[in-house]
Amino acid sequence: MQYNKFFEDAVARLHDERRYRVFADLERIAGRFPYAVWHSQTGPRDVVIWCSNDYLGMGQHPKVVGAMVETTTRIGTGAGGTRNIAGTHHPLVQLEAEIADLHGKEAALLFTSGYVSNQTGLSTLGKLIPNCLILSDALNHNSMIEGIRQSGCERVVWRHNDTAHLEELLIAAGPDRPKLIAFESLYSMDGDIAPLSKICDLAEKYNAMTYCDEVHAVGMYGPRGAGVAERDGVMHRIDIMEATLAKAFGCLGGYIAGKAEVIDAVRSYAPGFIFTTALPPPICAAATAAIKHLKSSSWERERHQDRAARVKAVLNNAGIPVMPTDTHIVPVFVGDAEKCKKASDLLLEQHGIYIQPINYPTVARGLERLRITPSPYHDDKLIDALAEALVQVWGQLGLPLGAKAIAAE
Amino acid sequence: MQYNKFFEDAVARLHDERRYRVFADLERIAGRFPYAVWHSQTGPRDVVIWCSNDYLGMGQHPKVVGAMVETTTRIGTGAGGTRNIAGTHHPLVQLEAEIADLHGKEAALLFTSGYVSNQTGLSTLGKLIPNCLILSDALNHNSMIEGIRQSGCERVVWRHNDTAHLEELLIAAGPDRPKLIAFESLYSMDGDIAPLSKICDLAEKYNAMTYCDEVHAVGMYGPRGAGVAERDGVMHRIDIMEATLAKAFGCLGGYIAGKAEVIDAVRSYAPGFIFTTALPPPICAAATAAIKHLKSSSWERERHQDRAARVKAVLNNAGIPVMPTDTHIVPVFVGDAEKCKKASDLLLEQHGIYIQPINYPTVARGLERLRITPSPYHDDKLIDALAEALVQVWGQLGLPLGAKAIAAE
Repeated sequence: MQYNKFFEDAVARLHDERRYRVFADLERIAGRFPYAVWHSQTGPRDVVIWCSNDYLGMGQHPKVVGAMVETTTRIGTGAGGTRNIAGTHHPLVQLEAEIADLHGKEAALLFTSGYVSNQTGLSTLGKLIPNCLILSDALNHNSMIEGIRQSGCERVVWRHNDTAHLEELLIAAGPDRPKLIAFESLYSMDGDIAPLSKICDLAEKYNAMTYCDEVHAVGMYGPRGAGVAERDGVMHRIDIMEATLAKAFGCLGGYIAGKAEVIDAVRSYAPGFIFTTALPPPICAAATAAIKHLKSSSWERERHQDRAARVKAVLNNAGIPVMPTDTHIVPVFVGDAEKCKKASDLLLEQHGIYIQPINYPTVARGLERLRITPSPYHDDKLIDALAEALVQVWGQLGLPLGAKAIAAE
Repeated sequence: MQYNKFFEDAVARLHDERRYRVFADLERIAGRFPYAVWHSQTGPRDVVIWCSNDYLGMGQHPKVVGAMVETTTRIGTGAGGTRNIAGTHHPLVQLEAEIADLHGKEAALLFTSGYVSNQTGLSTLGKLIPNCLILSDALNHNSMIEGIRQSGCERVVWRHNDTAHLEELLIAAGPDRPKLIAFESLYSMDGDIAPLSKICDLAEKYNAMTYCDEVHAVGMYGPRGAGVAERDGVMHRIDIMEATLAKAFGCLGGYIAGKAEVIDAVRSYAPGFIFTTALPPPICAAATAAIKHLKSSSWERERHQDRAARVKAVLNNAGIPVMPTDTHIVPVFVGDAEKCKKASDLLLEQHGIYIQPINYPTVARGLERLRITPSPYHDDKLIDALAEALVQVWGQLGLPLGAKAIAAE
């Protein structure tokens, strides 16, 4: 058996489809966000990062860095065990309390990543609710889809953010069927926001549970940074909040928060929680510091929105086809996998601007894009330089300028 | 619908079966391994940890702590993105090279945990090999079982460490069927070791691929700490090595290592790798420091074996029913879920000794045990105190003394 052939063929298919991915080797510089060193094939080069999910630069905030350094020195680098076997440590217990408080819930449960929290969280919830029907938004993240699949539950997909369709499906399921509605608050590739209030209305009317993923919103929306559900005043109406510590909170890990008995059941039954080493004390202490800071400081949130608005305005003025969004995400339409990759390469090589191409399967074919994420630390000069570079690259690749260049979805 | 009832009932079932788990809230003290503070309901208390999987205390090693502190200060706390989108950073690239070198493989791929590396690694490998049959050892870890299940491949289970049975199954599969043999090198609950050389013989004879989990062996076995396969001289005969950075290396994360095309294919297709934030730079730098140190220093490995041998000898002398092992794992037989929990509680409350009970589903019912993991830093005095405490607890609970107390499996 030529086993290697199977793997070579699999990789060759990606090359053929022009979606073989090359990772950029980056080295960020604490205190100089959004600058970084790119370790290119020809040596190190200074670049500006325009696509980080450390949306607020909290991964370099002195309080967050300080908490990690202090805890590493005092406790050590790792947890040393699963949660049950020697791995539950005090900074982790404190972080779970901090998260529960952030979302106004009775309890929270920490996972090694947001991916794992959706995957093992949703699959376990689904298994614990007899005969559960899961109603899943069409654009839910891969981690939610995998979690729903692994639950073994029946699943129906509602058209993205279409609550009329959701209502049809809830009615069709009937009043006696246990139902779980799974959705995100902010979809990160299009930057659009779910009608949370309307979803909660429907959930209450048809007696369904709600599971809301806020990974791209926590820290950035709501008066204390608890997310879009907090901003919209519906957080208390959502049964299970899920989010991450790895984006606006600048660290690593994911969590769910909800009623004590729900969290206790997931804690007791989820294999992806039980059989894995707990997050390290320094990570937990750093995340707690980030959450605490963003609960009381709104400077980052306001400046973040201001920067996003400015990027959109400057790029629109320059004719760059910005896909309209109500959020901090600034997608720029390309609509071609190869040109999208090429635009990214030109930006990096000729302009020292790092924006990764977003191709299939992260977005549908024909909707390839550059996804720009301004931070509070991208100043006017950097924004102007970005616009100039994009215009130049658009010219080199013969890409159309103007809003009409954006294909309908 | 009373959704809460589903979750309350699920938790009640665990209470009824006496396997509801209570996590001990611990705070380790860097430089004082294995001492820690236990945050009990009545306040903080000093305890000695006897069940950590930070087997060598590397989570507090000055080089490892130093690397984390230095990298946090220089780069920041988080990676800021998925591997593809801004999350590939230089300490991570260096760590993957270090791991590949450790195992003598062409390439390595890092995951957020050992659990995820098995789950998404095995499921992706299985999907990439057409019509693959996976032959799985009966005692493989939950993460391997989940990965195999999610691969969608046909699976057959061979009796634990029984190569005659494995051979039967290989013959039955026929020469033309692609086959993947999945096993661990060191099974952590019984502390026994797989017949790696014989498994490799069979894999070569019947043309199967091999996948070996060394999570409980890396750092601790082999001249450079690459694990049992290195010690036994068969590492080059195993196609895919899988292990963790969260046990003997004292940090967080998991990995696979193998041929470049295999690693590239998994990198390109594994959802649990693609759609999740990369491990933080400080974690990667700390793990690299731990691996590098243990490549050249054998003091920890020798002292570790010495301590394990001494614990076994002292406990055996005292009549404590130590289940025989050839490794650093010292399981003490109890055989009753409630008494196992009670023994753990008494050790903690009356003796300041923390050893978590191991009950179903981690081990089969009737094989409940205390699993003791001596480290290089457990000195003679601590070992003697452990023996005295166990004898006292055994008396309080009316548990039998002597080797005959161990039930056959």
